Amino acid sequence: MRELDQHTITDVALDQMSATRNQRFKELMDALVRHLHDFAREVDLKPGELLAGLNFLTDIGQKCTPHRQEFILLSEVLGLETVVNIMNDLRGSGRVTRTSILGPFHVNGAPPVELGQPLGSHLKGPEIALYGRVADTSGKGIPTATVEIWQTDEEGLYDVQRQEELDLRGCFRANQEGRYYLRTVYPLGYSIPMDGPVGDLIRAQGRHGMRPAHIHFIVGAPGYSTVTTAVYLRNDRYIDSDTVFGVTESLVRDIQKPDPTSPFPDLPGLKFDFTLRASVENTQGGHRKRVMPAH
Amino acid sequence: MRELDQHTITDVALDQMSATRNQRFKELMDALVRHLHDFAREVDLKPGELLAGLNFLTDIGQKCTPHRQEFILLSEVLGLETVVNIMNDLRGSGRVTRTSILGPFHVNGAPPVELGQPLGSHLKGPEIALYGRVADTSGKGIPTATVEIWQTDEEGLYDVQRQEELDLRGCFRANQEGRYYLRTVYPLGYSIPMDGPVGDLIRAQGRHGMRPAHIHFIVGAPGYSTVTTAVYLRNDRYIDSDTVFGVTESLVRDIQKPDPTSPFPDLPGLKFDFTLRASVENTQGGHRKRVMPAH
Repeated sequence: MRELDQHTITDVALDQMSATRNQRFKELMDALVRHLHDFAREVDLKPGELLAGLNFLTDIGQKCTPHRQEFILLSEVLGLETVVNIMNDLRGSGRVTRTSILGPFHVNGAPPVELGQPLGSHLKGPEIALYGRVADTSGKGIPTATVEIWQTDEEGLYDVQRQEELDLRGCFRANQEGRYYLRTVYPLGYSIPMDGPVGDLIRAQGRHGMRPAHIHFIVGAPGYSTVTTAVYLRNDRYIDSDTVFGVTESLVRDIQKPDPTSPFPDLPGLKFDFTLRASVENTQGGHRKRVMPAH
Repeated sequence: MRELDQHTITDVALDQMSATRNQRFKELMDALVRHLHDFAREVDLKPGELLAGLNFLTDIGQKCTPHRQEFILLSEVLGLETVVNIMNDLRGSGRVTRTSILGPFHVNGAPPVELGQPLGSHLKGPEIALYGRVADTSGKGIPTATVEIWQTDEEGLYDVQRQEELDLRGCFRANQEGRYYLRTVYPLGYSIPMDGPVGDLIRAQGRHGMRPAHIHFIVGAPGYSTVTTAVYLRNDRYIDSDTVFGVTESLVRDIQKPDPTSPFPDLPGLKFDFTLRASVENTQGGHRKRVMPAH
């Protein structure tokens, strides 16, 4: 035993973790402990501040339910999820469609919808044509692609915020050229849940909690890496300040005037193409893999 | 809007937090976001690993109850609380008694006990004399000092783990020379709670969850900074590997043979002196201050 100081404690902690069997888990925890200690030293963290932070994290955990994941929301408003998504997007070769955040309103079991049909059972509000093409990194269309889509209604609400019945979400099969097309309504932007600890954080930081208008997609095909992403509308006032940092230029589109060559020549058009990476290059690291061994 | 990469996202996030009104809170969050992003980039964090980590933190939060604070335990087993405590100890001038962790077994309302009386209502097991002196940084005894003490029994359990009645804890008033003295039993080491997510972490890291034998103290006096600390027994097998990093050399003592000059000449002795900092130098930063403005 020796007298510890605020620097030597770090090596003492790393030494005690040195018997970790899973080498990747050891690498993660070693780096995490070093960065946590560096953070505390850099800001000269006070005991009362540490306690306030731990109480905040406790509140975050206690706010979580099977239907609300406040910790994922926290990682989003701090930009952490975006760092991880971008690294994952840029890991392989070739330029593929960038990931955006999944968000809390995805539900399993989106109903199958025929190409050309409306996304909702009875669209209210002005309609747009939503269409595009799913291709591989060489530009070849992928006819086996599926395109799952969900979005808000004309008032900025998802179906699950209104009722039990699913609406304004569906799963499309691309045609032989990898194309998809459907009718829907303009999406509206909305606020993240502001009634929890993350809302307190956002207010304390003088930020708004808004997301710009967008439509969510999960696009996949056998033999290709699935991409979870969204298209964002450029004319939204929050396009440059998405509170969860889901927006990047390559995901932003303008609504186009009606185009005689589009699948719906009478409707304003929103065109969004996808490029998928062959899954032989899949380096996503296993979304469902537990890093920590289960006991 | 521009295309984000895994580096530029950090400045975008910091920019969105730049309107934070509380400047200290802004400093803390800016540094935290930078270190979180640096951590993710350094280890090339995968989406599945981030999700596993967020689920782990959620489990930590959900394990907390009014009687169990699993997040504080996490900060202890990662050495973070010790970094913060050490910086706080070394902040002022003069050499004062080092802090050790409070632990989960402190309860308010420890009964007053007269000097010289036993700490427990009916001591079981071999007795020791516990004594020492509370002084200021010039070495002058502090006659107004109070010494609150709590410890495990001969089986390594705290009173609150056995029964509702308080036992083996008490609050002593120092005498005119700042001295305190009492009879008690040898404390035993014990394991931190291993039935929660922190226990899973400890096992995955190949660590034991043990703390070496110790006795807890909270020592204070009007005009002096209160110190929360503990004395650790050198001959404990876990003295060099306390799972919560509470041990430092200046808090380690040997049990001494019976000493005719001690307050209890027939008993083995455990002598532990304290040095308190005058609270005009108090830079503890407010244990009860909320860092984040309440809403």
